[in-house]
Amino acid sequence: MTANARAIDIHNHVVPADIPPYAGKHGGNRWPQMAPCDARHKNVMIDGKNFRTVSDQCWDVARRIEVMDATGIGVQVLSPMPELLSYWFPAEDAVAFSRVVNGAIAEMVARAPTRFAGLGMVPLQDPELAARELERLMQDGFRGVEIGTNVNGVAIGDPRFEPFFAAAERLGAAIFVHALHPASLERIVGPPRLVPFVAFPGETNFAICSLITGGTLEKHPKLRLAFSHGGGTFAIVLPRLAQGWTISPALREIIKVNPRETARRLYYDTLVFEAKTIGFLIDMFGMSQLCVGSDFPFDGGDKEPLREIAKLALGAADLAALHENNAKRFLGLA
Amino acid sequence: MTANARAIDIHNHVVPADIPPYAGKHGGNRWPQMAPCDARHKNVMIDGKNFRTVSDQCWDVARRIEVMDATGIGVQVLSPMPELLSYWFPAEDAVAFSRVVNGAIAEMVARAPTRFAGLGMVPLQDPELAARELERLMQDGFRGVEIGTNVNGVAIGDPRFEPFFAAAERLGAAIFVHALHPASLERIVGPPRLVPFVAFPGETNFAICSLITGGTLEKHPKLRLAFSHGGGTFAIVLPRLAQGWTISPALREIIKVNPRETARRLYYDTLVFEAKTIGFLIDMFGMSQLCVGSDFPFDGGDKEPLREIAKLALGAADLAALHENNAKRFLGLA
Repeated sequence: MTANARAIDIHNHVVPADIPPYAGKHGGNRWPQMAPCDARHKNVMIDGKNFRTVSDQCWDVARRIEVMDATGIGVQVLSPMPELLSYWFPAEDAVAFSRVVNGAIAEMVARAPTRFAGLGMVPLQDPELAARELERLMQDGFRGVEIGTNVNGVAIGDPRFEPFFAAAERLGAAIFVHALHPASLERIVGPPRLVPFVAFPGETNFAICSLITGGTLEKHPKLRLAFSHGGGTFAIVLPRLAQGWTISPALREIIKVNPRETARRLYYDTLVFEAKTIGFLIDMFGMSQLCVGSDFPFDGGDKEPLREIAKLALGAADLAALHENNAKRFLGLA
Repeated sequence: MTANARAIDIHNHVVPADIPPYAGKHGGNRWPQMAPCDARHKNVMIDGKNFRTVSDQCWDVARRIEVMDATGIGVQVLSPMPELLSYWFPAEDAVAFSRVVNGAIAEMVARAPTRFAGLGMVPLQDPELAARELERLMQDGFRGVEIGTNVNGVAIGDPRFEPFFAAAERLGAAIFVHALHPASLERIVGPPRLVPFVAFPGETNFAICSLITGGTLEKHPKLRLAFSHGGGTFAIVLPRLAQGWTISPALREIIKVNPRETARRLYYDTLVFEAKTIGFLIDMFGMSQLCVGSDFPFDGGDKEPLREIAKLALGAADLAALHENNAKRFLGLA
């Protein structure tokens, strides 16, 4: 793997090495816990079940940097493993748990501040509270937050999330949106564990569409959002949505701007496993809107996150845009 | 519009001018009926509600040919308006209703056999019965059938549909799969009537994925299927599914062939409203797998179904493939 020591990976995840036991008063059955597995792995226990066996790369700074150096990643923008977003908690537990996870991320960033930046988590099931927690995170040096595509089944474009997005715009927070608990699972046929492969991309499409057709993006023109997995299937849906916008007076009443234009304001990662798809995303969204993503350190990720980009044989300026400059703009560092 | 008088449009729909009143014994509340509207339009009444106001282009051969001539379409492959597939019927009513619709299509083909080919409908809610009805349709000169992406919420890759697909393979029937009643509607935010724009493409993806991951396509290598709206979002999901296949032993046990290869066996229409998307579909599926689609005569369709293809500035052989030769292979006419 050739190294571009400055590439910024905006899509990779953290699990804390340890999580203190539940100390609230609401039962705490779904309070995640880390259980021992072997020397380099632990099990993330949620609701008494092993949600996932994860490696020490989830929390060990030295182990992460080793892989980053080997794969050309200069900076990882750390965000929680999405399942940890735990939107099932009542507000009080949600705040307590988010501080555990945010603390682990802050500590990793503090240990290697030139190699990591932090995206935290907020209790989006209570949008006002999420806005306040976001303010605290931004004061603590986070670049912003990771959120799910939906909160307990409600797409993030729903009006109830307005206080959070208003705060994010005001605070200049970067928002990384990750596919979470997709709908349509009843449409999957085959062996277990197909969900991330066949259903995540569509879930992300619904999140983006909801932010457009619900009016959030038009109301908040300065919001900076990036979407996992290349925005999922949104690039293919977009021309159809734009066609719908041209023939739907009801939609044009809510949004004045053609969705094709709005789409070119958003950021998308390159985690799509195919150079031709990255090329298509560039065509649809613009060279200025894609950022490197790897899903490190999980199995479903891309072990060589710069490989498919390299196949496009871009010029130096375009490569610098995809590798680092777009991410800096997304993160508010440009 | 420049005319290529030989282009074959595989995606356009028929509504019968008239539907006889319900004559069964199961109540028949959802038996569609045609109600007068104005000189050139009727309302399709289903369950006492106006499902859609449709124009006489849905049934009038001369009116259709007029538009075909103006837009470069030599042949329309007629299929039912998808809502008419009526998978809600008990078997007996389903057969009766499908014969009404199939009769209307057969009559249109008979009136202009050089300009139309027919895809009928079968009662897929009873797969054995659907297989028998398909046999009858093929004897009657139909090229095959249109089916929905799901039958009352069950994706078409479910094993229960095996008898139908086995019959289709044996009979050499072309199957056109159209998005129908998508899941995930709870993820849509905004004004009414967004479903076809934001949810149809993902629904088609689930249908294709289910046929792959459930093993149907591997079990029936000679099946010829085409998917509406460019296969929906499947082109973007495919590399991710292929990545999943490489890391999932359970999936590799069910399917031996990389999904990327299987994808290049299927046909897809070009109804994606964007030349760049058609280019991407060609990259992912092959020049040999795309066919013209318009959704004629409905509002959400493409009034100039050859326009985006023309922007690709393809050579004569490739253009002939997209305009007609691929469709002939799909239809079993090559």
